[in-house]
Amino acid sequence: MSSNWGNLLTISLFGESHGPGIGVVIDGLPSGHLLDLDDIRAFMQRRAPGRTAWSTPRQEKDEPEILSGLFEGRTTGTPLAAVIRNTDTRSGDYQELRIKPRPGHADLTGMARYQGYNDPRGSGHFSGRLTAPLTFAGAVCRQILKQRQIEIVSHILEIAGIRDLPLDTVTPDVAALAALADKPLPVLSDTVSEAMQAAVLEAKNNLDSVGGIVETMIVGLPAGIGDPIFDGIESRLGSILFAIPAVKGVEFGDGFAVTKRKGSTNNDSPVFAGKSIRFASNHGGGVDGGISNGMPITFRVGFKPTASIGREQQTINLLTKQADTLVVHGRHDPCIVTRAVPVVEAAAAVVALDLLLEFEGRSQAIRPGADT
Amino acid sequence: MSSNWGNLLTISLFGESHGPGIGVVIDGLPSGHLLDLDDIRAFMQRRAPGRTAWSTPRQEKDEPEILSGLFEGRTTGTPLAAVIRNTDTRSGDYQELRIKPRPGHADLTGMARYQGYNDPRGSGHFSGRLTAPLTFAGAVCRQILKQRQIEIVSHILEIAGIRDLPLDTVTPDVAALAALADKPLPVLSDTVSEAMQAAVLEAKNNLDSVGGIVETMIVGLPAGIGDPIFDGIESRLGSILFAIPAVKGVEFGDGFAVTKRKGSTNNDSPVFAGKSIRFASNHGGGVDGGISNGMPITFRVGFKPTASIGREQQTINLLTKQADTLVVHGRHDPCIVTRAVPVVEAAAAVVALDLLLEFEGRSQAIRPGADT
Amino acid sequence: MSSNWGNLLTISLFGESHGPGIGVVIDGLPSGHLLDLDDIRAFMQRRAPGRTAWSTPRQEKDEPEILSGLFEGRTTGTPLAAVIRNTDTRSGDYQELRIKPRPGHADLTGMARYQGYNDPRGSGHFSGRLTAPLTFAGAVCRQILKQRQIEIVSHILEIAGIRDLPLDTVTPDVAALAALADKPLPVLSDTVSEAMQAAVLEAKNNLDSVGGIVETMIVGLPAGIGDPIFDGIESRLGSILFAIPAVKGVEFGDGFAVTKRKGSTNNDSPVFAGKSIRFASNHGGGVDGGISNGMPITFRVGFKPTASIGREQQTINLLTKQADTLVVHGRHDPCIVTRAVPVVEAAAAVVALDLLLEFEGRSQAIRPGADT
Amino acid sequence: MSSNWGNLLTISLFGESHGPGIGVVIDGLPSGHLLDLDDIRAFMQRRAPGRTAWSTPRQEKDEPEILSGLFEGRTTGTPLAAVIRNTDTRSGDYQELRIKPRPGHADLTGMARYQGYNDPRGSGHFSGRLTAPLTFAGAVCRQILKQRQIEIVSHILEIAGIRDLPLDTVTPDVAALAALADKPLPVLSDTVSEAMQAAVLEAKNNLDSVGGIVETMIVGLPAGIGDPIFDGIESRLGSILFAIPAVKGVEFGDGFAVTKRKGSTNNDSPVFAGKSIRFASNHGGGVDGGISNGMPITFRVGFKPTASIGREQQTINLLTKQADTLVVHGRHDPCIVTRAVPVVEAAAAVVALDLLLEFEGRSQAIRPGADT
Repeated sequence: MSSNWGNLLTISLFGESHGPGIGVVIDGLPSGHLLDLDDIRAFMQRRAPGRTAWSTPRQEKDEPEILSGLFEGRTTGTPLAAVIRNTDTRSGDYQELRIKPRPGHADLTGMARYQGYNDPRGSGHFSGRLTAPLTFAGAVCRQILKQRQIEIVSHILEIAGIRDLPLDTVTPDVAALAALADKPLPVLSDTVSEAMQAAVLEAKNNLDSVGGIVETMIVGLPAGIGDPIFDGIESRLGSILFAIPAVKGVEFGDGFAVTKRKGSTNNDSPVFAGKSIRFASNHGGGVDGGISNGMPITFRVGFKPTASIGREQQTINLLTKQADTLVVHGRHDPCIVTRAVPVVEAAAAVVALDLLLEFEGRSQAIRPGADT
Repeated sequence: MSSNWGNLLTISLFGESHGPGIGVVIDGLPSGHLLDLDDIRAFMQRRAPGRTAWSTPRQEKDEPEILSGLFEGRTTGTPLAAVIRNTDTRSGDYQELRIKPRPGHADLTGMARYQGYNDPRGSGHFSGRLTAPLTFAGAVCRQILKQRQIEIVSHILEIAGIRDLPLDTVTPDVAALAALADKPLPVLSDTVSEAMQAAVLEAKNNLDSVGGIVETMIVGLPAGIGDPIFDGIESRLGSILFAIPAVKGVEFGDGFAVTKRKGSTNNDSPVFAGKSIRFASNHGGGVDGGISNGMPITFRVGFKPTASIGREQQTINLLTKQADTLVVHGRHDPCIVTRAVPVVEAAAAVVALDLLLEFEGRSQAIRPGADT
Repeated sequence: MSSNWGNLLTISLFGESHGPGIGVVIDGLPSGHLLDLDDIRAFMQRRAPGRTAWSTPRQEKDEPEILSGLFEGRTTGTPLAAVIRNTDTRSGDYQELRIKPRPGHADLTGMARYQGYNDPRGSGHFSGRLTAPLTFAGAVCRQILKQRQIEIVSHILEIAGIRDLPLDTVTPDVAALAALADKPLPVLSDTVSEAMQAAVLEAKNNLDSVGGIVETMIVGLPAGIGDPIFDGIESRLGSILFAIPAVKGVEFGDGFAVTKRKGSTNNDSPVFAGKSIRFASNHGGGVDGGISNGMPITFRVGFKPTASIGREQQTINLLTKQADTLVVHGRHDPCIVTRAVPVVEAAAAVVALDLLLEFEGRSQAIRPGADT
Repeated sequence: MSSNWGNLLTISLFGESHGPGIGVVIDGLPSGHLLDLDDIRAFMQRRAPGRTAWSTPRQEKDEPEILSGLFEGRTTGTPLAAVIRNTDTRSGDYQELRIKPRPGHADLTGMARYQGYNDPRGSGHFSGRLTAPLTFAGAVCRQILKQRQIEIVSHILEIAGIRDLPLDTVTPDVAALAALADKPLPVLSDTVSEAMQAAVLEAKNNLDSVGGIVETMIVGLPAGIGDPIFDGIESRLGSILFAIPAVKGVEFGDGFAVTKRKGSTNNDSPVFAGKSIRFASNHGGGVDGGISNGMPITFRVGFKPTASIGREQQTINLLTKQADTLVVHGRHDPCIVTRAVPVVEAAAAVVALDLLLEFEGRSQAIRPGADT
């Protein structure tokens, strides 16, 4: 069941990095949504390589071909399938990886899981390329959410331990945050952004890599959406966010920081804002008991440093049964955090639309003409 | 779908804090397992109140009655249902909470989600009491895992920011860690344990509360178990761990700390240990690409400070539509981290057995006679 | 996953015939529904033994105890769990069945599936008693559907090949059909009813058994509900109806009879009935492409003759490894079709409410005050 | 969730009849299976039009392109996605169908379900063309089952009420039945086959259509596979078989015929066949209590006559809001039963492999080298 996610809205991912193509089937979409393909392309471009000085030279156009679920420009409501062809593949050197597994990669676990039969080229199904169809799915969901005034925005909170300014998670300026996507890095402080970029380039020059943290908000989700216990918003987001390669930590609201606090300073108190109910603070990340409280849903996703580095590393040789060393070749980002931002947003969009469909049902999911 | 979790092994939780009873249906258990009820009771006692100086005076015997799925002391393989009666309930004062929702609780979100019809007494379905049947389910799974030499052990890493000694996650002393359960707090350092206890008592005396972090390991899971993408071990554990009340963060291996590292220091290198493959370090928490690598699966779960505190807090009054203040009465732990430890282990046991069943199938899940 | 069914509304069944109790957890119910317990008891009584001259002398009160999900008489929206205690159990003679498996029963398959560890007493988890909690779940769903003017009605179409008058499936008299439940058998023709009863009694006197067919309609389901392909109404109903013990066939509309027809006589033509769209005939059973067309959803469920009969039968002896003979003792109905009618309706109610929730979502599932 | 089916083995279908392509994602396949593409093509050809004198002149090559999940000719174990391009599409006349819905079709229900936004061309997602990717998925599963000596064979039991000779469901000649696929119609009696063909041609000449019944067996499934209650073999097969367009009835073993029998003649008695246990008869279709008993799993699937016929039919006009008449143009089979045979077998293969994976697990699903 590795490739399927969702309750009423389901996505089914497929593909390998160097196979014919990667893609996704999205089922349960509301019908009648006028899909803005340029907006989808623009969103996917944020994930594409080549936007920073250090990103992988692999050039993939990442143009999704929609095979089904779209008619006269609108979603039909039946499964929407999209395929992205792999074009710029160079698979010559993968045999070494089957003998000398890369530290920090799924080379050994993939072999164990699939008894050696998985596609090893470019990490196969374990490749970060699989986030491209996820990003496509999120781009579609995001458009539908926007019509409901639900927006998903992010910044890079940290790269290499260098920390951006804090987000306002109580009354965020959504337009300003959305505009971060146009900057070299989606970071509030330009000074911090430059320091982050310098850190990545330094790591690159040292044939090394760095990690970081993405902080994301879902703004506009009404109160009362989600479920207690196993289908809580945190459980659903946690489930899909940990599916993004290199993610090692997920926290909501102030996250692990709240473990050091007192209840008296951590509790978010409700307040009236006119007739509606808001909260004076948002340490909890907009979720109580698994259910939205009307405040922005906020969370942070921690990415490890890219496992593929140019330095010589210790590994084993499966032929000689001896210790060995390895220098990973191929084209790799010294920091995947920048390209991960739209992936995190896409995952959040899939979750948010699935939640919304359970709340609203199909009968009112898209009101005909609402988007014209 | 809030109450259901699992693929081949499923659990279905039910109950409210002050209703007739809480319980769980466990489906998909291997047949033929000789259930050790004393061991289950002992495990559940670790979650029960009354083991520390500060715990809630609510006294619940928490004796599970098994209604089905057990015959002549062994699991039948058909659904095992267990009910725990609520006995020590005092529901007199819940009406105030419907008017003045408690900060940090699900009072408002529950009302929004269920249009005001959910049971408000003692937090109803949102109560921490629902972790009792989860703990029962985990206690059952844990026994079956132990027969496969799979053990789940924990310590409290932090309370109120006071930190225990680090775990050895490469070659852990499982027996020593398991023995921590017999100490006042499951903490490696007795000095740290005393400091933690003092901090909790101080918070209690100040009518306040503190949070903390539980660190847990699944030891003995073979390599090659789990799935890439959405059904990875981290996704599954993340999904169920975020369902535990008060959890705000989950991280695997070294977690968020790896975001500040270089790839060259973070990657875990494989090494031969005789004929088997191990790793020289375990920063990744035993999971690569969603799949176990044979090292201990390690993770940390961050708990917020208990939301219910005796201090006066700001809230709103839903009748007067004005700001108001609230003093939460009732019986509450100033720190739920100690009681949360077996809950985290139980959740991990459910995940681990589900993973194992997918790997081994039903045909060999329990070999008749294996446990005698 | 044997015990779980449903998408947005899920039920989880448990229990064995002679264990402490049987029951069900229903998750996803709309909140705020004022449950009429007398109506539930009355509905469940239709399944209870003792209503006909031939039914099993086993006397079970079948009183469900609701453990959760109900507060001040209304559904909370959180899981509703109910337990029915087994009281009138006589398990003395089950050892013979482990040695000499009963023809037509799950004795051998249960042993193979559970490696001999399943509870054999009274057929254990395979007992028809498990339909009691299903009937309870259906009784709850039925009430909620009735508020939406969705009714489920039935008659016995056949017993022992004796056939009742045909149903009007285009403009059924729902009240008249509902009133059939008060007759000795829910059959349109009293003459046919008497012939059916005579046939059952004759079989009983001959230590034999007979089968039959239940025909059921879901009336009032709006057009446009359901899904194409795998989640069509026929697939969902088929899935749950084949879970009822002794069911060997399910057909929709005119069913297998349409295989002998021409398209020109079988197609249902739409017609205007005022402003709304109806169909001139209902050979298709109200479903086109898996989706409701607004006509009554009609289907037939074929039950085999009761496998447990008093006559001597050929079987094998698992100890001697030789052929052997068996006389099944115990208390058994010579025809379970009469008691199966509410079970079929209950299964249909679960399906219909699950379908409706997907269509309407949670936001409008119960409008507060709608039922007062 | 309309497009997804399965527990451990899942398939996700997508596509519309006249869109760019149709396809399927198969997840959970055992790794290491050497896929025989010629065998897949040959199996799919049995579904393709053009094999009989009457079949639709639409010419589709139905060549699946495998996008993922295959490496060096073997299944990787990761999702296997296949796309079939639609090439021979003529969509000129679909506007009429949006105004004058076809009797017996999903035109009205599709409009209601998707609020008018579904693709109407060639029935869109409701087209029988969607059975092509299902047939592909079944072709893959069938190969893996064959390695385990599990075979799926069929004949056409009836067309237009003309009935073939009965199958031997106790000791079937599997090779002879498999060879039926090479005949003009897969029918035991050549005389019957000719009568069936004549009946279809007569219907075609009368601008009408006929229905029929497919009878299928899964031979070689070991005893003890499946689940009681909701995940029984009959429930699973029922669920997927009713998803095939035009199916109105499904029955197991002797099906509805057993409703007219006595228990004494219907019960299947176990017998020893050497050391293994068989049954003297197979009225029950190889399933007791939802679980295989080791006998062939047998079932019948009833297909209605093709809804699209050349005769003038009564319908409504959605523009004029008046009654109207319709002559369906386009290319349609006067009988889809012949092409449905491999579709039924494919659906059965998906079910059987999913069942087998739950039984055997992933650890032994394919033993490396087993297929060479």
